[in-house]
Amino acid sequence: MKTLKIPEATIIRLSVYSRHLTDVDRKGIITISSGEIAEGVGVSPAQVRKDLAYFGEFGTRGVGYNVKDLHRHILKILGLSEDWSVCLVGMGNLGLALTTYKGFRERGFIITSIYDNDPMKIGTVYHGVEVMCIDHIEEVAKNNKTQIGIIAVPSSAAQAIADKLVRAGVQAILNFAPVVLNVPPEVELRNVDLAVNLEVLTFNVGAHRL
Amino acid sequence: MKTLKIPEATIIRLSVYSRHLTDVDRKGIITISSGEIAEGVGVSPAQVRKDLAYFGEFGTRGVGYNVKDLHRHILKILGLSEDWSVCLVGMGNLGLALTTYKGFRERGFIITSIYDNDPMKIGTVYHGVEVMCIDHIEEVAKNNKTQIGIIAVPSSAAQAIADKLVRAGVQAILNFAPVVLNVPPEVELRNVDLAVNLEVLTFNVGAHRL
Repeated sequence: MKTLKIPEATIIRLSVYSRHLTDVDRKGIITISSGEIAEGVGVSPAQVRKDLAYFGEFGTRGVGYNVKDLHRHILKILGLSEDWSVCLVGMGNLGLALTTYKGFRERGFIITSIYDNDPMKIGTVYHGVEVMCIDHIEEVAKNNKTQIGIIAVPSSAAQAIADKLVRAGVQAILNFAPVVLNVPPEVELRNVDLAVNLEVLTFNVGAHRL
Repeated sequence: MKTLKIPEATIIRLSVYSRHLTDVDRKGIITISSGEIAEGVGVSPAQVRKDLAYFGEFGTRGVGYNVKDLHRHILKILGLSEDWSVCLVGMGNLGLALTTYKGFRERGFIITSIYDNDPMKIGTVYHGVEVMCIDHIEEVAKNNKTQIGIIAVPSSAAQAIADKLVRAGVQAILNFAPVVLNVPPEVELRNVDLAVNLEVLTFNVGAHRL
């Protein structure tokens, strides 16, 4: 299916570069070198140049990159030049944390609907969005053209929610439930396992000790 | 500093394989092929073999891998053959979600202390752990040999917390605050940015459309 072979690590770093460029742009800085980007985010200048080279020539040798142009270009690569309509399914502690997570809105991910199956939670309003019953996912998601679904429900319920989201026509699913989900190949699926982050750390601690 | 050059994507997949092996082992299955692991987690058999080859020869050709041996070996590689003492700083929605996150305890990450600066939260007990004032981080973390610190505080407070954790002698920090932290090279640092996960998805949605 994929037409580009860009390492995921590069995509993640582009995301980090673009955040740094937001800060730099706010300070009124016009041009930036790969070395300055590298220093700002904690990678090597060669890595910055290699990552950007995947997407063509940006900078001017000896001058560096125009901050606004580079920022705009990276946002376009990441698909962030327009907003995305996101629905959140599951309003446990994690769901609650996600509704208050400023990083989503800042990057153009707008939570346009929230679902839960708990009658005590249905009808509650978070940041202007009312929690609806999960029975309405398909209808509402189709109506308001939801593009991304976030699954923050227990593992046992996750596949049923994924099926609903697929029928509702979402293009991508971000899954926090620690379970392997089956979705059709045209739907992008990404699993977030918070413990994996700790395991990368403990692996690295172990590698240091060797 | 690093003596091994293992791609981070490999470490993340090892973590995924080991979860699958936990399930397989619980079902009483004795041996497993790379093809079966691949199918169970949704990667190619060649990828499984390549990932495992970084750490020497495991399987027997035509027979496959002994499930328990392979599982134990992967856990050892990931540094999970023993428990880790973890402290959590910041009890907002995210902190609350993290205390109830089952995946940590299952993988041997035990939250042994929790800190906040809100007098309303200090003294509250979550899963047997009492929230303490952040002024006590250094003293308590040293006493109970905290190895990993999780930062779940606002960006503006994150560096001061990181400094306290470093002085307390933690080996690794997992940072959820969207800010670049400075820590000495001997402390492993990993930043978790939940929005990045959505950006990898939207990049992939865009790549599909090309």
